[in-house]
Amino acid sequence: MKKSLLALAVLTAVTGAASAQSTVTLYGKVDLGLVLDSGNPNGKSVRISSGVTGGSRLGFKGVEDLGGGLKASFQLETGYCADSAAPTSVPVKNSAGATIGTTTTTSFCTGSNAFMGRQAHGDLTGAFGAMSAGRQYSIGFTNLTTVDPFGTGFAGASNNIIEASGTRLNNSFHYDTPSLAGFVGSVEIGLGEQTGNWQGGRETGAGLTYASGPVYAGFSFYDLSNTNGQGAARKNYTLGATYDFGVVKLHALGQKSTGTPTGATVNLDVLDLLGGVTVPLAGGSLMADYINHNDRTKFSAGGNKDANQIAIGYIYPLSKRTSVYSSFARIIDKNGATFTVGNATESGTGNKSFDFGVVHNF
Amino acid sequence: MKKSLLALAVLTAVTGAASAQSTVTLYGKVDLGLVLDSGNPNGKSVRISSGVTGGSRLGFKGVEDLGGGLKASFQLETGYCADSAAPTSVPVKNSAGATIGTTTTTSFCTGSNAFMGRQAHGDLTGAFGAMSAGRQYSIGFTNLTTVDPFGTGFAGASNNIIEASGTRLNNSFHYDTPSLAGFVGSVEIGLGEQTGNWQGGRETGAGLTYASGPVYAGFSFYDLSNTNGQGAARKNYTLGATYDFGVVKLHALGQKSTGTPTGATVNLDVLDLLGGVTVPLAGGSLMADYINHNDRTKFSAGGNKDANQIAIGYIYPLSKRTSVYSSFARIIDKNGATFTVGNATESGTGNKSFDFGVVHNF
Amino acid sequence: MKKSLLALAVLTAVTGAASAQSTVTLYGKVDLGLVLDSGNPNGKSVRISSGVTGGSRLGFKGVEDLGGGLKASFQLETGYCADSAAPTSVPVKNSAGATIGTTTTTSFCTGSNAFMGRQAHGDLTGAFGAMSAGRQYSIGFTNLTTVDPFGTGFAGASNNIIEASGTRLNNSFHYDTPSLAGFVGSVEIGLGEQTGNWQGGRETGAGLTYASGPVYAGFSFYDLSNTNGQGAARKNYTLGATYDFGVVKLHALGQKSTGTPTGATVNLDVLDLLGGVTVPLAGGSLMADYINHNDRTKFSAGGNKDANQIAIGYIYPLSKRTSVYSSFARIIDKNGATFTVGNATESGTGNKSFDFGVVHNF
Repeated sequence: MKKSLLALAVLTAVTGAASAQSTVTLYGKVDLGLVLDSGNPNGKSVRISSGVTGGSRLGFKGVEDLGGGLKASFQLETGYCADSAAPTSVPVKNSAGATIGTTTTTSFCTGSNAFMGRQAHGDLTGAFGAMSAGRQYSIGFTNLTTVDPFGTGFAGASNNIIEASGTRLNNSFHYDTPSLAGFVGSVEIGLGEQTGNWQGGRETGAGLTYASGPVYAGFSFYDLSNTNGQGAARKNYTLGATYDFGVVKLHALGQKSTGTPTGATVNLDVLDLLGGVTVPLAGGSLMADYINHNDRTKFSAGGNKDANQIAIGYIYPLSKRTSVYSSFARIIDKNGATFTVGNATESGTGNKSFDFGVVHNF
Repeated sequence: MKKSLLALAVLTAVTGAASAQSTVTLYGKVDLGLVLDSGNPNGKSVRISSGVTGGSRLGFKGVEDLGGGLKASFQLETGYCADSAAPTSVPVKNSAGATIGTTTTTSFCTGSNAFMGRQAHGDLTGAFGAMSAGRQYSIGFTNLTTVDPFGTGFAGASNNIIEASGTRLNNSFHYDTPSLAGFVGSVEIGLGEQTGNWQGGRETGAGLTYASGPVYAGFSFYDLSNTNGQGAARKNYTLGATYDFGVVKLHALGQKSTGTPTGATVNLDVLDLLGGVTVPLAGGSLMADYINHNDRTKFSAGGNKDANQIAIGYIYPLSKRTSVYSSFARIIDKNGATFTVGNATESGTGNKSFDFGVVHNF
Repeated sequence: MKKSLLALAVLTAVTGAASAQSTVTLYGKVDLGLVLDSGNPNGKSVRISSGVTGGSRLGFKGVEDLGGGLKASFQLETGYCADSAAPTSVPVKNSAGATIGTTTTTSFCTGSNAFMGRQAHGDLTGAFGAMSAGRQYSIGFTNLTTVDPFGTGFAGASNNIIEASGTRLNNSFHYDTPSLAGFVGSVEIGLGEQTGNWQGGRETGAGLTYASGPVYAGFSFYDLSNTNGQGAARKNYTLGATYDFGVVKLHALGQKSTGTPTGATVNLDVLDLLGGVTVPLAGGSLMADYINHNDRTKFSAGGNKDANQIAIGYIYPLSKRTSVYSSFARIIDKNGATFTVGNATESGTGNKSFDFGVVHNF
């Protein structure tokens, strides 16, 4: 996502005071594609969709130099639906917590369907590194996105079948060390905010990444506490790397998931493996990968719900900011697995999906 | 709606790359009026309302020159309530689809109560014409708005009683030919996006307009498929024209509606006729029109629910961007018809409405 | 709240017309703090919160010179959650108005949970004073905020226990006289907008303030009609003042509340008293106050639900736009009162709250 920084010139300041130099960057993405899903027993689905390669968004960000190498910054990013004003459905529950019906609420298409739900954080950066508080991408999701040839977008989004380590953490604090010889260490915590239960629903994570020249390598860890605060509902250990040979970029990732959700009698045990390539082709980029999802959890009912996904895509830049794209992915579900081929915004309706569209960044 | 283009100067670009010249236009409308409705059996209603002449809105748009005469552009426009933070009511349904109650959700006042629900589309324009995808005005609504002396706003909004051909189409694709000697042809399709039923809820339309000097003439066609995909719930055929003599501008429109909603035993048969004038007066504009709504549908129960509306309004510019206005309209309902006098944003509470207010465009 | 005015340069105008000079100001606040509540029987609460000192917000405003001393302006300000994309809970009611469950809707954290719900108004200013219509702060709330050492923010927000005269009025009209020797008179009305009942739910208010050099003094009156339009549900009479001696600024406020809510058999009778100081300290500001809430209402059940709050806070500017802060407040509830220590955005979970955080204005 190349984003142009649109800096606004300061003309004057309120209340007669001299104004500090100030910039706010307005940026965004409009992604509209035609999507054809198949493989659903009810039939095919033809849609004009918002956010195939990445969620359509509108963002505001800014940086203030505090002096002494210290900077304050912020980023606020909301999703929106570039395709439709149709509302989204939400469940209605009675006082006992049982679902008694549904109603509708405004859709933002991405970002947990919240205004500014994609990102909202304030940051302090300096010689000590970078600290951020708010709603922000998890370390594990960022690692997955960086290694995925499709950047967790297109029909082949790896998070169609690989769990994305919380994607974004609410009520979170994040710290990155400065880069040292290409290495950056990160930690994060997302508070569950339950009264009287500081551990319930808490998310924690850590990561170590290396980036230098053609190489990226990253390890990340993610831990989601059970809602009652007793033990981990899920732990992800993710190791991924890419190497850019110029004529081809190789992508590889493995993720092992464990955990014991409340009430479960067996431990979660999943291994995901991804191998992929990106190839410069005819002025654009060709991406392809294969993902194997091996669910070795011994659930009493069902279990062993494996799947694999193959995906191929192509994106061609019309300019620095506008590209045309097309992608296709297919999931083979086994043992009753019900994974569907979605993209950066939609979860999809079938086990095959084809799309083509235009994405414009501003 | 005169909108000032506020272009943001590019100062720098992210990731060290040279930046393409970029502009984003921020625009909007704040319309606040005092509205007095009467003719409701429960009594009068006095309100401070948002969007009498046109929905209060905030928009973002931009254009990128791709070279070779090709341009990429986008427009994102959200409604908001300039008058109130009161939420809107939405129904709650049980699993069988029956309404069991109501709840509230954030109101955006216009645009189907959705964030960016007024307009959200990406466009490509070139020698071939203009293609747009997303949520956009229907061809029929644009034709109606262009001919209506009140531009489908004020107390006299023609769509108080004339069906507006879907107003805006979700999940739609729109194509305009280049203008040829003043003629522009247009087609549109809005997908119903039902899995396994490509026709259900689909909207299609076409139009041919002529604009040159003092003349505008437009024909449009709109077809809404039934939700089950069997036949058309509604078809509108709309022919309208305006001629500006300078001392007076004449407006005339006719719309014939047919269709067979699912389960209906008779065909829809409605004829709407509009005649109106716009007169430059004392530095402002005086608008007036008369609309006859002749419902000839032979529904078993009721039917023949005719109505006519008379309307008059005046708008006076305080500047290029700010105007004061006042308008009045009255609907005479016949045979149990229940049309109410609304405006660009509200549906109104009675068969008479008077307003005055200020509209500011930015 | 110092806000930088970001003026956007006009480059061009639509439809070939010459463009009027136009400015839109984009401004906002990102406030993120760590909050620790205690005193709730269920235990402590640890949260990362949005808007401790003032609600996190994004705003758009502009001014147009109409000539002859007349100016048109507008302000649109939305809240957002800087901390989380968690939705908020709203009740579901059946057709009889009884609550049958709950559902969720997008949270904006402040501003009655509405898009542009913090402020949305259009204004005309000139030699006659200033008129505004839309959604805007009540005169009584502005008076309270001006006198409160914490500006109705931080852990010690005075409106934790002092009723805030409606805070913001929907569908309202507001008029301020020009300042005459430091005196400004104000009136306001917020319409209830009930069909057939012009008085139901109506809010009215008035104020007289004096500001000159180190002195501020303000008297305000607020009247909320019962929903059925019969009598006042609440009347607030608020008198407050501050005097800045330089080494210390003194704050004092008294508010008497009366009224007869529909169906109540006794009259509301509450007296709030606030005394506080602001002291410049080590480059920042130290604030402290004490509030006594004396509820003398003789309700048949309960009644006399008194409380008092003590609060202390410190804010230190890192720059003109960025500050660090910390505050603590404690409420002592008596006779079954259930006031909790909240802040500018949250209502809190206990009778004690401590916070520290960073607030950035842009």
